[in-house]
This record gives sequence, C-alpha cells and structure tokens, in this order.
Amino acid sequence: MPAFINDTFIPADDAKLHVSDLSMQRGYAVFDFFRTVNGRPLFIDDHLERFFSSAAAMHLPVNKTKEELIRIVQQLLQQSSLPEAGIRIMLTGGYSPDTYTPASPNLIITCNPVKTATAADFEKGFSVITYEHQRELPHIKTINYAMAVWLQPFLKEKKADDVLYHYNNIITEFPRSNVFVVTKEKKLLTPARHMLKGITRKKVLSLAADVLVTEERDIHLEEVYNAAEIFLSSTSKRLMPVVQIDNIVIGEGKPGVITRELYRRFLEKEKNQ
Amino acid sequence: MPAFINDTFIPADDAKLHVSDLSMQRGYAVFDFFRTVNGRPLFIDDHLERFFSSAAAMHLPVNKTKEELIRIVQQLLQQSSLPEAGIRIMLTGGYSPDTYTPASPNLIITCNPVKTATAADFEKGFSVITYEHQRELPHIKTINYAMAVWLQPFLKEKKADDVLYHYNNIITEFPRSNVFVVTKEKKLLTPARHMLKGITRKKVLSLAADVLVTEERDIHLEEVYNAAEIFLSSTSKRLMPVVQIDNIVIGEGKPGVITRELYRRFLEKEKNQ
Repeated sequence: MPAFINDTFIPADDAKLHVSDLSMQRGYAVFDFFRTVNGRPLFIDDHLERFFSSAAAMHLPVNKTKEELIRIVQQLLQQSSLPEAGIRIMLTGGYSPDTYTPASPNLIITCNPVKTATAADFEKGFSVITYEHQRELPHIKTINYAMAVWLQPFLKEKKADDVLYHYNNIITEFPRSNVFVVTKEKKLLTPARHMLKGITRKKVLSLAADVLVTEERDIHLEEVYNAAEIFLSSTSKRLMPVVQIDNIVIGEGKPGVITRELYRRFLEKEKNQ
Repeated sequence: MPAFINDTFIPADDAKLHVSDLSMQRGYAVFDFFRTVNGRPLFIDDHLERFFSSAAAMHLPVNKTKEELIRIVQQLLQQSSLPEAGIRIMLTGGYSPDTYTPASPNLIITCNPVKTATAADFEKGFSVITYEHQRELPHIKTINYAMAVWLQPFLKEKKADDVLYHYNNIITEFPRSNVFVVTKEKKLLTPARHMLKGITRKKVLSLAADVLVTEERDIHLEEVYNAAEIFLSSTSKRLMPVVQIDNIVIGEGKPGVITRELYRRFLEKEKNQ
C-alpha cells in the first residue's frame, strides 16, 4: 500500500515523522478524512475545501492546489488495491527548531481499508451518554481528540457507544460526529456553533430540506431528552440512530421514520455521486 | 546525539513514529521535560513522578520503573557530548489498529541542547497579555498546546512575550509556565487549580515559605492588575519577572525585590542540587 509525504510517494510503512514535528511536540496539525464509494472518493471537494480552511485557520500553508491533491489521491487509490479506502490527509506544524514555533509543514496522505456502519448497525442504533465539555478551536479539524480518547474507559463502564458533548446544557457534537434532533413537531434541529461542521451533516441538511423543516440553532439538553428521534452523522457511520441517551429511551428504542427516510436518501445520493 | 525508543538506543535522526501513532492521529500522548545543571538532571525525581502521574491519568502504562528511566537518561547524557541538555520523555497512545483506541504505548526519550533565560532576560522581564481560555485536562501534561501555538501570531501583533490564560477572570497559567503574584501586602499568591503544577512552581513555593506568606488559591484578574510584583516560573525560564500585563505596568516596569530574592535563592538551590 502506498502513502504520500510532502512530494513523494512512499510505502505506507515509511509514513513516519520525526518526533520534533509539532504534531508530536505540541499537538499542532490539521487533517481531513474521506472514503471511496465504488472506488471514487466521496464528497472530495467538500473535504478538501474544509482541509484548506482548517489549514488556513491554523496559519499553515498547504503548498499544493486542490487539483494537485486530487491527483495525488487518485494515484494513491490506483496504486493501492483496496476495493474501498479511507483517505487521510494531514498537515502538521513541521520540524520546529525550538519545539514551539511552526516551521515548513509536513503533508502526509495515507489510504487504508475503511469500515463503514452496516444496515444491521443502523437497525440496532447507538446508546449514548452526555458529557460536559467544549472542544478547543472547535471549527478547525485539528488532531486534538485527547478528551474523546481519554473518555473511552468511562464509556465502556457506562456501556455507551458514544458521547454527546454539551456545554452549559447546550449540545454541540459527538467527538467524531454531528448530532441531529427530530422534535415531536417534526422539525429537524442541529447545532449551529461551537462544533465542527461535518460534510455528512451538510449533505443531510440539504437532503432534509425536501422532507421537513430544518433549523440550525442552539439545542438545550431538555429538547434532546424530549426528542421524537435523534441521530448522528459522520463519514464512516453515515446516519446512525440514537435510541438511548443517558437513561432515556428515544422513539421506543428503534430508528425513527424520519431518520430512516433521510438514511435511505443519503444511501441513494452516495450511490449516485 | 543519541535517542531512545521503547527498548533501544538509536541515533537522534531515527527518533520517528509512524503516522498511525495516536499522538498524530488523536493528539494522545503525555511528556515531561527537564534539563541538566553541570551535567546532572535537575529535579529528575519530581519530573519523573509527574510523568508517571500524567501517564496513569491518561490510562497509559509506562512499562519501565523510575530507576530504569533514570538509567536510560544517564546513558543518553553520557553518549551525548552536550555541556547542558534538555531531556524530553514522551509516552504516546501507540499504533492504534482503528486510529482511536489506545494500543501499546511508544516511549521516546530525546536530549537536545537547551537554552535557558539569561540574567539579562531576567532584568528585562516579560510583557504579557491575558486571554480567556481553559485548557482541557489541565492537570495532565499532554502534548496539546494547539491553542498556545495558534495564538503566536496574535502575540506577535500585540508585541507580547507570553500569554496568561484566565477563565471567568480567574487566572490559571501561561501555556508553559506557572504564574505568581506578589500583593502590595507582601503575600505570594499562585493558582491552586485548573492548571498544570510545575516543578519550578513547587520549588518556588518551598523557597518562598522562608521569605513571605504564600497562598495557593483562585486569583482574580483585578488582583493581578493591582499586584506589586508578578513573575512566571518554568524549567527553562526559572523565574521571569512580568513587568507589563495588558496595558498595565507592574512595579515601575522592573523586577521587584521579592522576585529578585526568590530568583537568587532558586539559582543557589539549582547550583547546589
């Protein structure tokens, strides 16, 4: 399997950085992640647009155009013999001379087998818990998921599939997914700020506009507990129903009709990209 | 110059990790940093104690005893021909099979030339600004300094040497240093929570107990603006006077007598370790 570093295709095993890179010195790096469907990168324009936006927000020059990155990704996919792949593009703060000041960024692109949620996963849904936490620089896709990884033993203890962050009782996001709430009045709500705007979230909002009223706004935990349906959205999970949150069962513990309809439309869109 | 990775001494240039390490995937790693004085590691027991405590708090097993780490550090120092060195020990979340779940940690120890603040730096002091921010998991020495690095262009624009974090007007710490405030009543204050407890901070508190009353407690920004003296403490800066904060000049813009006395005592302690 091949990888790409700065200007060179390399074997994936050689995709290494020296410890003086600011990603390891100071957690300073951005990335994006997308997958293929029938061998073609899904929503690559949106992902690369966000990647450039993350890099700019972190004051890191990309030194490649979007077209150049697309060509590199296509070459990686051709060289890898994967039926479907997950592609990760990372840009770091570079080899800092003083372990603190950004230097010339390192660009690393890897592609690996990718696992997506199955239809059975969808039917089962997720049981989640809430946790009070506001991510730093939430609008930028940095590599900082320390809190999410740190919470894993706690999730295991609570037998939860994922954790929904809130701050002052206003929900924001899951560590790697966005959250949607269908109210009993059949409105689709999703947070508008203090979180990362996912590409799947964007597609869901666009699809949902044909189905029901959508609102991007602050959502109080009380509204979540009283929801008709809840689901999360992400690249690898597409739409995933949330059937329990904290100790409250949502929609009789089964995927709701709106979630199911949006999921159906998303699968169709994905297939016809 | 040599380095150490997991169980092996290697040339420093080979101190690399594969991009699948959780430090680069999710910013999941802890570290500690100390320096030598006359070739001997300064306060190594305190630093290693904190390193073990950080690792435990992040659910990462060290797989080495303190004595083993001390021996490795001593061998590194012998093999390097540095007059004085900065030693960095890092423990990461390891090569995760799913880019999210911690695996067997990677341990990397490097030693490099170290620059400490000079007597002239002390006389000049620091001009700093305040910024509202609460670090995540502040009691653990993780690699996450993304906010600090991100703020560098802002500091440059403001011509500031460093940034003091506060949250709801209660000060906590500088990104890499602790903060001390000498009140006009000659009390020494330093925050007690929501920050990382530095080793230099610990030594200063111990030295200061012979000189004046010390209090570890929440400190309001108003108290900072009305301080007789302010200084910061860190491994590479020892004690550094803060002579300006935001637009307010502290102590006529010169190092204060208490700061100077504590600095003198610290240099003595360091020399006689």
